[in-house]
Amino acid sequence: MSKKIVFIGAGSVRYTIKLIGDLAKTCELNNVDIGLMDIDEERLRATHILAEKYSEELGANLNIQSTTDLEEALKNADFIINTALARAEGHEDGYVQYEIVRKIGEEHGYYRGIDSQEFNMVSDYYTLSNYNHLKMSLDIARTIEKVCPDAWLLQTSNPVFEITQLIKDLTKVKVVGFCHGYAHIFKVTEALNIDPEKVDWQVAGVNHAIWLNRFYFENLNGYEILKKWIKDKSEKWQPKDPWDVDLSFAAIDMYEFYGMLPIGDTVRSGTWKYHYDLETKKRWYGKFGGIDNEIERPKFYDQLRKTRSKLIKLAEELRENRNLKLTDVAPEIFPESIDSQEQHIPFINALINNKKARLVLNVENNGTLKNLPDDIVVEIPVTVDESGIHPEKIEPDLTDRIKEWYLMPRILKMKWALEAFKTADLRAIEEILLRDPRTRSYKQVKGVIKDILDLPFNKEMKNYYS
Amino acid sequence: MSKKIVFIGAGSVRYTIKLIGDLAKTCELNNVDIGLMDIDEERLRATHILAEKYSEELGANLNIQSTTDLEEALKNADFIINTALARAEGHEDGYVQYEIVRKIGEEHGYYRGIDSQEFNMVSDYYTLSNYNHLKMSLDIARTIEKVCPDAWLLQTSNPVFEITQLIKDLTKVKVVGFCHGYAHIFKVTEALNIDPEKVDWQVAGVNHAIWLNRFYFENLNGYEILKKWIKDKSEKWQPKDPWDVDLSFAAIDMYEFYGMLPIGDTVRSGTWKYHYDLETKKRWYGKFGGIDNEIERPKFYDQLRKTRSKLIKLAEELRENRNLKLTDVAPEIFPESIDSQEQHIPFINALINNKKARLVLNVENNGTLKNLPDDIVVEIPVTVDESGIHPEKIEPDLTDRIKEWYLMPRILKMKWALEAFKTADLRAIEEILLRDPRTRSYKQVKGVIKDILDLPFNKEMKNYYS
Repeated sequence: MSKKIVFIGAGSVRYTIKLIGDLAKTCELNNVDIGLMDIDEERLRATHILAEKYSEELGANLNIQSTTDLEEALKNADFIINTALARAEGHEDGYVQYEIVRKIGEEHGYYRGIDSQEFNMVSDYYTLSNYNHLKMSLDIARTIEKVCPDAWLLQTSNPVFEITQLIKDLTKVKVVGFCHGYAHIFKVTEALNIDPEKVDWQVAGVNHAIWLNRFYFENLNGYEILKKWIKDKSEKWQPKDPWDVDLSFAAIDMYEFYGMLPIGDTVRSGTWKYHYDLETKKRWYGKFGGIDNEIERPKFYDQLRKTRSKLIKLAEELRENRNLKLTDVAPEIFPESIDSQEQHIPFINALINNKKARLVLNVENNGTLKNLPDDIVVEIPVTVDESGIHPEKIEPDLTDRIKEWYLMPRILKMKWALEAFKTADLRAIEEILLRDPRTRSYKQVKGVIKDILDLPFNKEMKNYYS
Repeated sequence: MSKKIVFIGAGSVRYTIKLIGDLAKTCELNNVDIGLMDIDEERLRATHILAEKYSEELGANLNIQSTTDLEEALKNADFIINTALARAEGHEDGYVQYEIVRKIGEEHGYYRGIDSQEFNMVSDYYTLSNYNHLKMSLDIARTIEKVCPDAWLLQTSNPVFEITQLIKDLTKVKVVGFCHGYAHIFKVTEALNIDPEKVDWQVAGVNHAIWLNRFYFENLNGYEILKKWIKDKSEKWQPKDPWDVDLSFAAIDMYEFYGMLPIGDTVRSGTWKYHYDLETKKRWYGKFGGIDNEIERPKFYDQLRKTRSKLIKLAEELRENRNLKLTDVAPEIFPESIDSQEQHIPFINALINNKKARLVLNVENNGTLKNLPDDIVVEIPVTVDESGIHPEKIEPDLTDRIKEWYLMPRILKMKWALEAFKTADLRAIEEILLRDPRTRSYKQVKGVIKDILDLPFNKEMKNYYS
């Protein structure tokens, strides 16, 4: 029987298309069954059309089915790629809701909203007010437990750390968290002008909190190269775009304090030192102030929505005109030559076809990172093959400073947020906010929570917590 | 050879007198050699006179020597009781300096000063700006290592958690931290109107962060009695004095959130929820707002100083008139019947004379408190006898909430403060303040640190950190 890969939240369109591209180019997987699932029929249909056409153009002719029914989608599934983000009726996507909640936070004195927290400043990594999404993600896992208990769940939608941990804690599903943030190592090697193929690297930590613990270029200590770059070039550094923060002043400042370079989203997830306001963000992340601010973030969402509209329109056009060639009309989305840097398809191919792959995944610690709890989900380099996931020995170890000043506080925040969710105890959310540097009074805490709970789309959350 | 007990910082007068009382009533120890040491000659002389006379009145005739020389005092010492608090020339005592540093903190927006921190709101438990005191305490330990390496160091001056840990980390001295805070259990049993002799109790945690994990009265669950008290009496609770906070609204609120009752100074060491300002403190600790505020704390220091002056005057009078009887003229300080609730003398008696004693001491964890680091100093009930210190099995265990929401953050703060001290890295102090709910900007952090380092008595600290 052929293997089945299911995409939950396939209607995000673009992400699904990217992975379909990866699948199409992986000839060993061309005969798998692909199931697309989304609650939004229009987007699901569009994704289906585009995915089929794209795979056809790439010469793969993938076998794609789609459904709005979760249980049906999961039937006989071997791999579930979950990119779904909860959203309420009447709202275009989950991000709209995030922005509404953020606005309420800001009205109560929480710049960037209550979910932007020390060690978690990424603007759509909501852990406190995100009941709907956590609940939906857990429900999907529970349905997997029922319908296809042996399947692998590739948890992709954020907050990857919290959701992967939650599912691991409360279900028996084989869950692994996926994030492409580690790939920013190659932004670093590019900036340092060294051949990434000749770099011996490791990263380790937890999701959005990973550090370059090993860094050699040929026989050289890569950190010596970095130090030279800092001496010669750091001062004149300028970002090319809002996402370009890998060697920002914040990154270098974190490196100098913690003793290893933060990689990918970690750079964005510092303390308030870098995030007090837009002016502060610009000082540390360059002229755009990074992507996590009131100017760049809405622009980014606009762009996402425009791309999605364009894709839906393209799907409609395709129904009229099958001769239209996606790789011609929108090559930025449908490239002929593919390098998505996503790890899902290599992961699946390694497990099914023993195509050994080195990946950076979110899996249970179990002693890989010493002096951190064993039962938490860590992000580490692993080798995957048909026998499973094999964590690498982390060498050299992360610095004590990274563990004691960054990872442990971040891990505690994960535990706190999940405990609030698991126990339906509003006092836990209050207590988290009482420890927030933006809080001035208990009244402020009660006020912001009340207003968030009173939102129409948080009705279930309000019931749950009372 | 008779055993020798040395008091470092004996010139605090009153504390020494209290322990001399304990010694005098412990007949097995009446023949030990007692060494008093202080850098303040006047106070040392006064303590010597009063201690000798008091012990004589109690019929003990202790053998007391005094010196201002540390090494001389430590010669042949078996037990060193360190109550010393660093102070600079020209200042009456260490508290004066604490108040000066606090004032600078307040000028920069840090209510109660930078050292008042979440989980550490006790007004003279300074961990960040307290270089002089940490350094002096470590130097004393290093001198012990040299002069009397087999002696026990009974670390008594605060911050007991940080100093005991520091000495344990950096020396081979047999150090144990002493605090009488656990004895507030008996304030609780008094309020609940139950016979403390019939209570089966345990407390556990770290210094100033201990919780009543076991609580039975005869065959009843003590927490049921507490719940009834809360239902019937909590609302009408009023403090008798600023120290009376054991069943305050803050204590009950912490109990309800953490699942066990905080004991002693723990009640004072909550988060900012209870401490934003005097008004907030009054709401949670009753009409005085506890002892850790701008009204009660200076009054307390005044009272301490008045008592000290009175004692010094009394010592002078004694030199004129040996017939003066201390137990008559100042029975509140020189009681005839003694119950100091201090654990030092029972500890010494247990080790020397095998007089088995159940105490609550600060010793290395080594697995006693599960899921907390093994190498940290925890405050736990132990039995002491001539073979050493034997930790009790903690049963039932502390709640996860206490460990994950209170103890781990508190332990991290200890680690952070000690790392700043050990590595002479000012960025570590900056980073701690950047995570402080009172901080609004990096500039504020730099400003307050600069002004504290510029204090005349912090010259050595400034050199050390630059």
